[in-house]
Amino acid sequence: MNRGGHDEQLDRLTGILATMSREAAVAVRDASTALLDVDRGAAEAVVSRDASLDAHRRDVEALIPEVLVRQQPVASDLRLVLCAIRVAGDLERMGDLAVHIAKIVLMRHPVAVVPERARDVMGVLTGATARIADKTALVLATRDQLDAMQLGLDDDEVDAAQARLLSMLVAGWPYGVESAIDLALLGRYYERYADHAVNVARQVVYLVTGTIRL
Amino acid sequence: MNRGGHDEQLDRLTGILATMSREAAVAVRDASTALLDVDRGAAEAVVSRDASLDAHRRDVEALIPEVLVRQQPVASDLRLVLCAIRVAGDLERMGDLAVHIAKIVLMRHPVAVVPERARDVMGVLTGATARIADKTALVLATRDQLDAMQLGLDDDEVDAAQARLLSMLVAGWPYGVESAIDLALLGRYYERYADHAVNVARQVVYLVTGTIRL
Repeated sequence: MNRGGHDEQLDRLTGILATMSREAAVAVRDASTALLDVDRGAAEAVVSRDASLDAHRRDVEALIPEVLVRQQPVASDLRLVLCAIRVAGDLERMGDLAVHIAKIVLMRHPVAVVPERARDVMGVLTGATARIADKTALVLATRDQLDAMQLGLDDDEVDAAQARLLSMLVAGWPYGVESAIDLALLGRYYERYADHAVNVARQVVYLVTGTIRL
Repeated sequence: MNRGGHDEQLDRLTGILATMSREAAVAVRDASTALLDVDRGAAEAVVSRDASLDAHRRDVEALIPEVLVRQQPVASDLRLVLCAIRVAGDLERMGDLAVHIAKIVLMRHPVAVVPERARDVMGVLTGATARIADKTALVLATRDQLDAMQLGLDDDEVDAAQARLLSMLVAGWPYGVESAIDLALLGRYYERYADHAVNVARQVVYLVTGTIRL
């Protein structure tokens, strides 16, 4: 009976985290659509749906003391519970960063934030970030270590694209300072989103192995 | 005997967090000195001392499962342990942000990152952030709720200064795009540092009251 309750609560915890990772992935995909297609509706959807990620995080934080006191988990169950605190924080933050991206789109609408000259590099940045987001959601569902390790390569691609974007901005950017700042901050938001996603994967690998860090 | 071990471990946990908060405060103060006085030595010190914050965070993460399994804390002791996970994460991140500031100084040295025109607003931003850092360290030591609540006002000052900085940058900034991006990113780093500091204070108040959120 007690054991049954235990499993149920831990399953609920992992279920919420899996939901959060899917929502965070949808958020950054829609923010990128909003950005590249100048799509106001997509941007507004990202902003309005963020409350759901916040609520899930609060659910995780309410569940954790309950699980610890009632079940006194040890070993891998304890690791799962401690992991959940950090993972929920990372996933909520990923949602916030998607909102930051969407808000830049809304602030400049109907003017496009990404001029033709920056479309290629922003395409790489948004594409690599979307792949990271999807793989993170998959790692959370499958706890597959190889998936988690591959994320490092996608993250390198994000960092390289961000560096290329910054080089472009400081080498005779013709669209003015405001445009350059928008794109520099966007680069930073994507980089941070990807970092948090890699953190999530790292935590999941820690959960599985107890030792390996990416 | 068991109870004695319990107190000792929890004291060690709070001791590490107090040390981390002092180190994070020193880091942002030195980064600001480096920035405003074009002080290469101060910037290098920030970068090299960051490993200490990282090590403290690992110590906290190693202590926590130990405390949970051996002591099975409840009520306020359990809140302290859960709080410590998040607070250690915030404090480590504050150190990282101070490093980001220091690295911009090192990248441009011996050229000053802050031109005369932006000195006033950067003075407000760095001053308010330093006050927040010191108060956060104090709140961690005293767990005084009023100190924690006052932090919100300092944080408003940081946000206002950052908004003023951005307005200045987009209104005919004469120092070029690279300078504008440096300052926009610096503004963002200070804002995030302050946000994390306020998070720390919020967690400490949660620790004391179990309910009140700032």
